[in-house]
Amino acid sequence: MDATSTSTRRTGRRPGRSHAREDILRAARASFAAHGYEGTTIRGVARGADVDPALVHHYFGTKDALFATALELPLNPAEVVPELFSSGTEDVGERLVSFFLSRWDSPAFRQPLEALVRSAASHEEAAAMLREFIGGEVLSAVAGAIDGEDAPLRAALVFSQMAGLAVARYGLRVEPLASAEPEVLVAAVAPTVQRYATGDLLPSEGARPSARSG
Amino acid sequence: MDATSTSTRRTGRRPGRSHAREDILRAARASFAAHGYEGTTIRGVARGADVDPALVHHYFGTKDALFATALELPLNPAEVVPELFSSGTEDVGERLVSFFLSRWDSPAFRQPLEALVRSAASHEEAAAMLREFIGGEVLSAVAGAIDGEDAPLRAALVFSQMAGLAVARYGLRVEPLASAEPEVLVAAVAPTVQRYATGDLLPSEGARPSARSG
Repeated sequence: MDATSTSTRRTGRRPGRSHAREDILRAARASFAAHGYEGTTIRGVARGADVDPALVHHYFGTKDALFATALELPLNPAEVVPELFSSGTEDVGERLVSFFLSRWDSPAFRQPLEALVRSAASHEEAAAMLREFIGGEVLSAVAGAIDGEDAPLRAALVFSQMAGLAVARYGLRVEPLASAEPEVLVAAVAPTVQRYATGDLLPSEGARPSARSG
Repeated sequence: MDATSTSTRRTGRRPGRSHAREDILRAARASFAAHGYEGTTIRGVARGADVDPALVHHYFGTKDALFATALELPLNPAEVVPELFSSGTEDVGERLVSFFLSRWDSPAFRQPLEALVRSAASHEEAAAMLREFIGGEVLSAVAGAIDGEDAPLRAALVFSQMAGLAVARYGLRVEPLASAEPEVLVAAVAPTVQRYATGDLLPSEGARPSARSG
């Protein structure tokens, strides 16, 4: 537990040499797998890698960036989402669907995500880790960019359509969706995402008061 | 290969005794796993179970029903979908979302589906089998109930939203979607499914001619 303790593996805290970065990534992967996303701390990873926490921050910044790098995610959703919302919520449906299709259509982008999903489907620990990351980083970023008290539900609905599109197009390769041109899918799906982000969620005819949950 | 051949396991085609049903299911599971959905035939399953093909039809009807029973699916989508569309496409979004939420919310219904999805995520053979069944039976049933030449794309879009809802609510249990009341989700998601089934898929402002693919 003490970072300066001698162990059979290590003889003391080492300076930030070139392989410290790899040691940190290895310790991060072990911690995310063992303790999940929420249970992992920069301090704990530093201890596992036998380095100073400042070095982890220096190399990787925040925990979500460390997670994205350790799991070889091709991007950090917690950074990308605010960018996609940076020019407001008008046309955000089109921006989101266009952006993710352009990335997903690249195998180099898709393969690490598919590995993560496969892992989550077969290991409850990996599923919990992915759930915590999506809930804590991705959806909170989306919700933070959407106005209103129902923003968390709106963010989760946006996620549901984007995840289902990925499952159908890339996972199960359902035709004709799998080989449809991106423009066709953007035209079809962007209005859904736009409505989830900014439109009416309750049926207008129902004369229900608001989206407040009871 | 010859159904009357003697083998180390069997000594000849047996009459339809009570355990023939279990033999058929075992042979069907083996065939779906080895040859996929499309590569499996009633005749081949009968051969594997050492029974007459008529007995397979007698017990299970068609191949999609045999698939649903062999994989312990809680319902046969190829039967349910036409029922949901039987009163037309008006309000079909609400009917579809209500029906599937009511089923998915029951663990007895959900668990065999989750087992199938887990299997598909980790084994390419299982993924191919699920893909063929969804494409060949589920989506063709939905497409058959929708008018127009873009019906297959519409069916796949409906599938994408329903699959994404299942992933978010039951797979990853993303909040607040996971604990939202079904009525809230029906109100939020039914218009999406309705638009995919019957609405405009291309942006009206774009002045594009029609949904014909190039």
